[in-house]
Amino acid sequence: MPNTPAAPPLYRRLATHYRGAIEAGTLAPGERMPSLRHLMRLHDISLSTALQLCRTLESDGWAEARDRSGYFVRKPQRLRLAPMDEPAAGLRPDPAQFVGIHARVSAFVAQRRAAEVKVNFSIARAAPQLYPAEALRAGITRALRLRPELLAAAPPLQGDPQFRAVLAKRALAAGMTLSPEEVLVTNGCIEALNLALRAVAHPGDTIAVESPTFYGLLQVLESLGLRALEIPTSPQSGLSVEALELALQTYDDIKAVVVIPHLQNPLGSVMPDAHKERLVKLCESKGIALIEDDTYSELLDVDSAPRAIKSWDRSGNVIHCASLHKILAPGMRLGWISAGRWHARVEMLKYAQTRNNEVLSQLGAGEFMASGAYDRHLRRLRTALREQRERTAEAIAAYFPAGTRLNLPNGGLQLWVELPGACPSADVFDAALREGILVAPGWLFSNSSRCDHYLRLNCGWPFDEVVDGALKRVGQIVGGLAR
Amino acid sequence: MPNTPAAPPLYRRLATHYRGAIEAGTLAPGERMPSLRHLMRLHDISLSTALQLCRTLESDGWAEARDRSGYFVRKPQRLRLAPMDEPAAGLRPDPAQFVGIHARVSAFVAQRRAAEVKVNFSIARAAPQLYPAEALRAGITRALRLRPELLAAAPPLQGDPQFRAVLAKRALAAGMTLSPEEVLVTNGCIEALNLALRAVAHPGDTIAVESPTFYGLLQVLESLGLRALEIPTSPQSGLSVEALELALQTYDDIKAVVVIPHLQNPLGSVMPDAHKERLVKLCESKGIALIEDDTYSELLDVDSAPRAIKSWDRSGNVIHCASLHKILAPGMRLGWISAGRWHARVEMLKYAQTRNNEVLSQLGAGEFMASGAYDRHLRRLRTALREQRERTAEAIAAYFPAGTRLNLPNGGLQLWVELPGACPSADVFDAALREGILVAPGWLFSNSSRCDHYLRLNCGWPFDEVVDGALKRVGQIVGGLAR
Repeated sequence: MPNTPAAPPLYRRLATHYRGAIEAGTLAPGERMPSLRHLMRLHDISLSTALQLCRTLESDGWAEARDRSGYFVRKPQRLRLAPMDEPAAGLRPDPAQFVGIHARVSAFVAQRRAAEVKVNFSIARAAPQLYPAEALRAGITRALRLRPELLAAAPPLQGDPQFRAVLAKRALAAGMTLSPEEVLVTNGCIEALNLALRAVAHPGDTIAVESPTFYGLLQVLESLGLRALEIPTSPQSGLSVEALELALQTYDDIKAVVVIPHLQNPLGSVMPDAHKERLVKLCESKGIALIEDDTYSELLDVDSAPRAIKSWDRSGNVIHCASLHKILAPGMRLGWISAGRWHARVEMLKYAQTRNNEVLSQLGAGEFMASGAYDRHLRRLRTALREQRERTAEAIAAYFPAGTRLNLPNGGLQLWVELPGACPSADVFDAALREGILVAPGWLFSNSSRCDHYLRLNCGWPFDEVVDGALKRVGQIVGGLAR
Repeated sequence: MPNTPAAPPLYRRLATHYRGAIEAGTLAPGERMPSLRHLMRLHDISLSTALQLCRTLESDGWAEARDRSGYFVRKPQRLRLAPMDEPAAGLRPDPAQFVGIHARVSAFVAQRRAAEVKVNFSIARAAPQLYPAEALRAGITRALRLRPELLAAAPPLQGDPQFRAVLAKRALAAGMTLSPEEVLVTNGCIEALNLALRAVAHPGDTIAVESPTFYGLLQVLESLGLRALEIPTSPQSGLSVEALELALQTYDDIKAVVVIPHLQNPLGSVMPDAHKERLVKLCESKGIALIEDDTYSELLDVDSAPRAIKSWDRSGNVIHCASLHKILAPGMRLGWISAGRWHARVEMLKYAQTRNNEVLSQLGAGEFMASGAYDRHLRRLRTALREQRERTAEAIAAYFPAGTRLNLPNGGLQLWVELPGACPSADVFDAALREGILVAPGWLFSNSSRCDHYLRLNCGWPFDEVVDGALKRVGQIVGGLAR
C-alpha cells in the first residue's frame, strides 16, 4: 500500500464543504441532506462518490443515516469537559515488574458476584440487540443442514478454510497482504495474545505495554510469569514511541511490545500512521517482537479502515492478533492470529494448548462476513455507539463534579474518565456497587497506582433513563468523595 | 461409595453360568440367546436383572445385541499373539528430562501433510458414522431457535449451567460427588491438562508421567517448560505405583503425577481400584498433585462405570480432567476440569487463557447427555469398537511376523503393537506412508528411545477390505524390516 501524501479525494473536499455549511448554519441539525440523486446532479459526481461523501459526513458526526429516509444533518457535540493531560515528555517508565493483578481481579470478581448488579458499566461490549444474532443463527443452522458430518468429524487445526480466506481478504483493507495459510483461528483475541507471548518470551522476560492497558493483558502477563514495563501512553495518540525508545536505553531484556493501535483499551486513543511506522522500524532494528491487538479497529468512526501496524511489516516481526468478539458476536469466541516469523511455533503452541477451534461459529461468521450484510452491520453499530458515547459523555459533563476530564474517543464502546481531586476509584467502585451500579475502577488498568483516580465506563448499551440515572448517582458519589 | 468386597450380584452369577454354557458348546456362536421374557420366567428374575445379565454378557464379549432381534451368542476371540512383558520390578526411571517432542511431531506432521494418505491408523477417534451427529445437530438447532440471544450475549465463564449439572450428575456414576460449581468447561481435555499443570507447577519443575504416554501430553509439558519423569507402566494395570514410590525416593522436585487410569493411551491398560487408591494416598502424603485424564473411561467394556481416581480424593489433591471429544463428537471441543483445591487458580488461568467456551455445543451435548440416548449411543459405540479391535488384532496376528506382541485392551479405539526383532517403527512409518498408509510410530510416545519398536494403530473405523489390505501391507513391511 503506497503511503504518499496527496490532495484529498473529491468526496473529502465536498465533505469539508458541507461541514462548513453546517457550521455556518446554512444546513440546520435535523434537516434532511440533499438526496444522493440530487448530490450527483448538483456536483456532477458518480453515485459512489455521493455515497462516500455522505458516509464521510456520517463517520465524522455531521450526518446520520435513517433507514430508508436518507441522511439527516446533525452537529457533533462539543464536549464541555477538559481533555486529559498528555504524558510528560521524557517520562521514564517505572521499573519492569512482575504483574500482581490476579488478586485484584479476584477481589473485583468476588465483589461483583456477591452484589446484585442493576447497571453494568464495567464490561466492554455492546448490548445484544446491536449484534446480528438472527443472521448468524440462520447461517449456522444452514451449515449444520448442509454438512451433517460437521459435528462427528475433526475440523482442521488452523480453522475453517473459507473463514480464514474471508479474514485474509478483509485484512487487505487494513493494508495487510496475508494468505489464508498465514491466518490461524483462535479462541478470541485473548488466546491469540497468549500464543504470541508464549512464542516470543519466556517466564521472567520483560514485555513493554501501554499504560494504562486493559487488565486482561496484565492477567496474561502475570499468568505467564512475565514482567510488565508500562510505557507512557497518550490519550490522543496512543503509545509514546519516544518513551519506548528511552526505555530501550535502560532495559536490554525487553522481548516484546504489545500495543492496541486503534481505540486503545481503556484510553480510546488512535496511533497516527507515522507513529505506527516508526514503531515497526524501532522494534525491528532492536530485534523486539511487536504484537498488535486489533480488537477495536472496526469500531473506529472513519470512512475507510485504518492501516494495521502489520501493514508496515516486511520481516515477519509483527504479530497481528484480532477478534470478532466485540464487533460481531460476544457469544462466539472467534479470534485470529497472524504470527509472521513465529507462525510455526504459534501453530504448535495452539495445538498443545487447545487444539482446533470448533467450526460452527466460524461457518456462521464466515458466511455473514463475506456478504454485504457485515459492513451494513458495522455501520449501524458504529452509529449507535457514537450516539451512546456522546450521550454518556454529556451525562458525565452534567453530573460529575468540576475537574472531571475525559477525551471523547473517535469510536468504540467505552469512556476513560479522570476523576478530580485524586478521588479514589476504589471508593467510587464500592459505593456504586452498594447501589447495584458496577464500574471498572482505574486500579485494574495498571500494575502501579497511576490510574487509581480513573474509571472506565461502558457505553455499549442504549442510553435510557436507567443509564442516565445511574450516571447521575455515580457523579454524586464522585462529588462526595472528591473533596 | 462403599468399597467392601461382597458376593457377586445375581446377574453376575447368571452371566458366569451362561458363559460356562457357551464355553461348553451348549450354546453355539451365532445362536439366539433366550429372550428377556424367557430369561425372566426361567430364572424367576425381574426385567432389569435379565437386562443386566444380557448386557454383562455383551460387555464381556459373550453376546451381541442386534437391533430389534435380541441378543446372540458369540465367542470372544482368543488372540494368537503373546502379550507384552510387564515392566521389570524395581526398574528406576530415566532421569527427568525436558521434553523434546515438538521437533519430532513437526516432522511427523510435515511428512503427513506432504503425503496422500489413503488409510489413517495414526489418529485416536472413531469414524464419523459412529457418532450421533444428527441428534446433536437437532439439539443445537433447537437451542438456537429457543434462545435467539445466544450468539449476541456473553456466555458464563465456567460453562453453561445445565451442561455442568449433567456432567456433575454423570460423575456420580464414577464415584465422584461434585457440585456443578466444581465443574469448569474447557476446550477439550488438552486445555484441562494445560490448566491443571499451569496451576500446580512452574517452568523447570518435574512431572511424573506414564511411559509410554500420548504425545499430546508430552507436547504440553514441553510447551510449558516442564520436565518429564517417565514412570514404568504396565500394559495390563497401568502406572506402576511401586516404581513411582521408588522415583519419589530419588527425585524430590516432582510437582505432579499425570495418569490415564482407564484405557491408557497408547497402552489400553486399566488400573485396578487398589492401585488407584494407593496412588491417591501416596500423592497426598507427599504433597504432590495428582492429575487424572479421564478421556477414555466411557469406552471401557464393563457393565458399570469404573471408579474415577478422584472418587478417593478427600483433600482436593486430585484434579480430574475429561473430554467428550472421543466419545460424543470429535467436531466439538468439549472438555472439563474439576480442580479440587486449585479450583480458583484454574478458573483464573482459564479466564486469562481463552475466556469462556462457546455455548452452542454445550447446549447440544447437555441435552443429548441428559436423555437415555446417550447411554444407547455409548453401548452401540462400544459394541462397534470391540468388533473393530478384535478384527484388527486378528489381522495383525495373521499378517505380522512371528514375535509381534500385543495386549488386546478391554475397550477403546486403538492397539499398541510391539514389533519383533527391534524393528524400527520410524522405518515402518516411512515405508507405509509411501504407500498412503499412516501409522503412529512408537517414538512419538516417549521422550526416550524406549518405544522405537512399537506402533499405535487406530481401530475406530469399520473393518473392511481396505483396512484389511492396509494391515496386510504394514505386516509385510514389518516382516521385511524385522530380520
